[in-house]
Amino acid sequence: MTTSALPVLTAFEQSPDGGRGLARDMRVRWALEEVGQPYELRPLSFAAMKSAAHRALHPFGQIPTYQDGELRLFESGAIVLHLAERHPGLLPAEANARARAIAWIFAALNTVEPPILDLFNAKVLEREQPWHRQRLPLVEERVRQRLDDLSARLGGADWLEAGFSAGDLMMISVLLRLRPSGLLDGNPALGAYIARGESRPAYQRAFASQALPS
Amino acid sequence: MTTSALPVLTAFEQSPDGGRGLARDMRVRWALEEVGQPYELRPLSFAAMKSAAHRALHPFGQIPTYQDGELRLFESGAIVLHLAERHPGLLPAEANARARAIAWIFAALNTVEPPILDLFNAKVLEREQPWHRQRLPLVEERVRQRLDDLSARLGGADWLEAGFSAGDLMMISVLLRLRPSGLLDGNPALGAYIARGESRPAYQRAFASQALPS
Repeated sequence: MTTSALPVLTAFEQSPDGGRGLARDMRVRWALEEVGQPYELRPLSFAAMKSAAHRALHPFGQIPTYQDGELRLFESGAIVLHLAERHPGLLPAEANARARAIAWIFAALNTVEPPILDLFNAKVLEREQPWHRQRLPLVEERVRQRLDDLSARLGGADWLEAGFSAGDLMMISVLLRLRPSGLLDGNPALGAYIARGESRPAYQRAFASQALPS
Repeated sequence: MTTSALPVLTAFEQSPDGGRGLARDMRVRWALEEVGQPYELRPLSFAAMKSAAHRALHPFGQIPTYQDGELRLFESGAIVLHLAERHPGLLPAEANARARAIAWIFAALNTVEPPILDLFNAKVLEREQPWHRQRLPLVEERVRQRLDDLSARLGGADWLEAGFSAGDLMMISVLLRLRPSGLLDGNPALGAYIARGESRPAYQRAFASQALPS
């Protein structure tokens, strides 16, 4: 393990999405850009991700991981929360508002993302299975239910709570994984919400950094 | 909305698991017992969970929610983290150790629980579907992969980091949802880990409180 003056983030050497910004390192890059924290990127091959050395950092052999001095973190939610707690800009100062912004991080990861992961499994991993075509509408319906609930809550607001927070960063990152499916097309309010996230300069810097060949 | 001197937790009036402690209020009850915070339980019917009044508390119409004075929280992960941050006993004091314990909360909710939810969907919601029998081994294999990785990391240790934390509380709560499937039977190390959690007096008090008819 080399030492580095900057925090080190791991990401796919060859992202399966071909640089569309849908891998889980992107949400951490976005948070790093929002708080103005420079970092060193360490790209990993699929073989390296499953190595014992990397599993010491990430027990499930995935990306991203984050190392800052003695601190070694895994899980994009934990890394984003860590950054949001240690830098201004991603969480409100008032305690209750802060707790609510953090609740949206969890809602993104534990309520909205699971059916989206299931949709990915259905569309990619189970594409050749005999049940693929018949099962897909059922999986899509579970995603749509979450989108409807989220859209109803968002209403005409710009962000989920009073101002942009790590909760929006995570929710938008999770929703973006749906873009290739077309399921967002039927929901202009969520489409506009995602576009507001993407138009942030920090998002654009993060996207550019991952879209470039490493 | 009535006011209450104690924090108010919502839970199923009739839990679909019949009181086996597998619903998401159980992890919050366990955390409340660990930190010694008394609370008022508000049981909700399925109809009440989908009401506009409850959706004001929980945008996705689910349980649990947590109200403490002006604070209104949803998402079991957010509520457990909130309690762990405000009371001693569920997070280490040292900053890096604290961040790692929090990372395990996220690992439980975003890496381990999604395939477990998918297994639940496969076994319960898709039980009558024509693909049920053929697809089940594939879903079980995804769960088993997570269990193997988790088990390898745990090794012979009692807890995921130096001492019991909110990360263990959440991981054990998530793993318990697997018990009816029999998938834990092949993994004695994880079985012992779960049993260590269940033997904690706080877990037992929480379990007893949800097993009783409300």
